[in-house]
Formats: sequence, structure tokens, C-alpha cells
Amino acid sequence: MRKKFSYIVLKRFLHYRQCLIKFQRLGFRKIFSYNLGEEAGVKAEQVRKDFSLFGIKGSRRGGYDIDYLLSSINDIFKQDGERLVVLAGMGNIGQALLNYQGFKENKITIVAGFDLDPSKYLRKFSIPVYPPDKINEIVTRYSIKTAIIAVPDIAGQEICNRLVSAGVKCILNFSPVRLKVPDDIVVNYVDLRNELETLFYYT
Amino acid sequence: MRKKFSYIVLKRFLHYRQCLIKFQRLGFRKIFSYNLGEEAGVKAEQVRKDFSLFGIKGSRRGGYDIDYLLSSINDIFKQDGERLVVLAGMGNIGQALLNYQGFKENKITIVAGFDLDPSKYLRKFSIPVYPPDKINEIVTRYSIKTAIIAVPDIAGQEICNRLVSAGVKCILNFSPVRLKVPDDIVVNYVDLRNELETLFYYT
Repeated sequence: MRKKFSYIVLKRFLHYRQCLIKFQRLGFRKIFSYNLGEEAGVKAEQVRKDFSLFGIKGSRRGGYDIDYLLSSINDIFKQDGERLVVLAGMGNIGQALLNYQGFKENKITIVAGFDLDPSKYLRKFSIPVYPPDKINEIVTRYSIKTAIIAVPDIAGQEICNRLVSAGVKCILNFSPVRLKVPDDIVVNYVDLRNELETLFYYT
Repeated sequence: MRKKFSYIVLKRFLHYRQCLIKFQRLGFRKIFSYNLGEEAGVKAEQVRKDFSLFGIKGSRRGGYDIDYLLSSINDIFKQDGERLVVLAGMGNIGQALLNYQGFKENKITIVAGFDLDPSKYLRKFSIPVYPPDKINEIVTRYSIKTAIIAVPDIAGQEICNRLVSAGVKCILNFSPVRLKVPDDIVVNYVDLRNELETLFYYT
């Protein structure tokens, strides 16, 4: 297992990548930490500290090579490998994720879906959709390590248990349930409701 | 303007609320900070500290009254008022949000949608959908302070500018663009791509 950096650090790297792609499109080949920091909204020291965490080096005079930075960041997130995921829950959120352009752009492929509702198995989606008791078979067949859960809250924990026992290590959970998982499983939560709720505090 | 508590604190309160509702359903009327902390996965001292930030009081002997806690938290997020929002972008994500049960449960109402694509204006959604040049009129009519942006990245900043100049103060942004906004505007970002990307680091 690789050293676990915090979610916040990883998110910052993804943000650096977006900024670097922008600089690259503008024709830049080299960049200084303060340029990147300014664009990303963090201090130059933070940028340098983050890069050094992953052994990414620049020169004080010439700055960082943008190609090198991008390929280093891609390595961190395994962007050159196959990135296959499964999707549990083919409701509104699940279907939006299936058609989400952002995943396609980042070479993330949803290989199969799971749903409790048998009417979903016959409907034409761009991926095959199976009942939950197929989870083990499909996850094993594709050696899936990453899953998205977008089922109603009551079904969340059971689907999670099935995914984990089939070998899934990382879960992106859209169901509004805190999942109980073994220590070696990583869960990211996206609670759309809470994202909006926090805003109402400020209004 | 109210004192600005951090996003992290606000999220913790929303999580406390979920836990409290669970305790209430189980028949509890009173709760101690260590019970709530255990359920929420934080320390009892953290719970007490958070509550005291908002002047929420309990007794050392009797604990906190659950009804009182819930109504205090509802006050923080103005859950008893009308909570109206507009939605810019009626693509996959926008449509999923429109049908998202979680918003309905939390009494959040999307009053209107905006989209660049004229074919959307005639389609039957559960809300009226207008071109972006109607933003000012609609936001003013309903005194909207909160908006969701779910447009493709190139359109994000322009839509944001229109919303802000119409009077919107808080934005939930699903477009993968850092929005440039005046200091008094609050933006929450949900980048679904990045949420999944951080997981690939751990696989």
C-alpha cells in the first residue's frame, strides 16, 4: 500500500493539473511555483512543498517543466493505466454519472451497472446492468478496485458489503449513509444535499 | 452578514443532524455529547465545542435535548424558511439534480432552470426552463440567493456573472471551472471527476 496522503493534498494535485493544462494550452513549457500558485490560489511554498512530497523536482532558476509535472501527476493517479469502475444504482444520479462527459475525458470507464430493479436490466443503457447478486462475478472478472454507489440510502450498506467482499477497495458514495467498512477501504462521500445546505447558512 | 464558520464545521453540523434524526427515530429524547460523537465519528469534546460555537447549551447531567438540538440546527440552515434555488444547465447532471429526492426531502425547491439550448425550453420538465438572458428577471422575481451551476465548463463563468449580477450570493458549482467572483459570494465546488480521481490514487 502506498503512503496515504490526505484527500486535501490529492485534490490540490488535481487542481494543479487543471491549471497546468491551461498553461500548456497557452503555449508555456516551463512554470515557476509562484505562477502555478497564483493560478491555483495557493502560496508558492505550498506548491513546492506539495511537489516535494512526491519527489517532483524543479530548478530554482528554470522552474518546473510542465510536461514533466503533468506526467508525474498522471502517475500519481494512474492515468496511463486502465481505469475501470462499476456503478451500483441506475437511478437519476447513476444515469447522469454514466453519461458524464468528465469521466470520459479522464479515461474513466464504467464497465457495468447494478440495480435492484429488474426493469433496468432490459433497458438500453450504454453498459450492461445486472442484479446485485452478480456483483462478485463482474468485479472479479474485470479486477475492479473502484466502485460508485448511487443507490437509495436503505440499500447503501448492503451494496457496499457486497462490493467490498468482491474485492473493491475504493468507493465513491452518493448515498446519504455513512458506510461501515474495514480499515483498508477508502470511501469518498458526495452528499449533494449537504453541499447545497451549507450554502443556505450564508444566505 | 453572519459570522462565517468554515465549510468543515457546517458539514459536521449536517452530519450531526442526520445522527440526531436517527436517535430520535429510535425513541431517544436526550443525548450526551459522547453518544452523538460516537455515532458521528468525532470526539465528545468536538461535539461540545461545535455546539458552543452556536450558543447551543446542554446540561452536564442531563445531556442535550434532541428536539432542541434539531431545531437549533434547522435554524442555522434556515430550514424553516422557503429555500428556493435556480438551476443553470439542464444536461445530465442538471436533470438528475432536478429529480433528486434528497432536495425534496430537505424542502429545497428548484423554481426554474436555464439553458443555452432552445430545444430545452419546449421539453417537459417539472420546472420552466428559460434562456440565460432571463436570469435577471427570474432571480429578481423570486428573490433567489442560491443557484446551482451545471453547465459545460466553457459556459460556467458567463452564467456565474449573470447570476451574481442578478443578486445570487451562493453558488453550488458542478462545472469544472474555478469561478471568479466578488469577495462576498460563496461558491461550493463539486467536481465529480476529482472525487473519483482521488480514489485511483489508493488503488
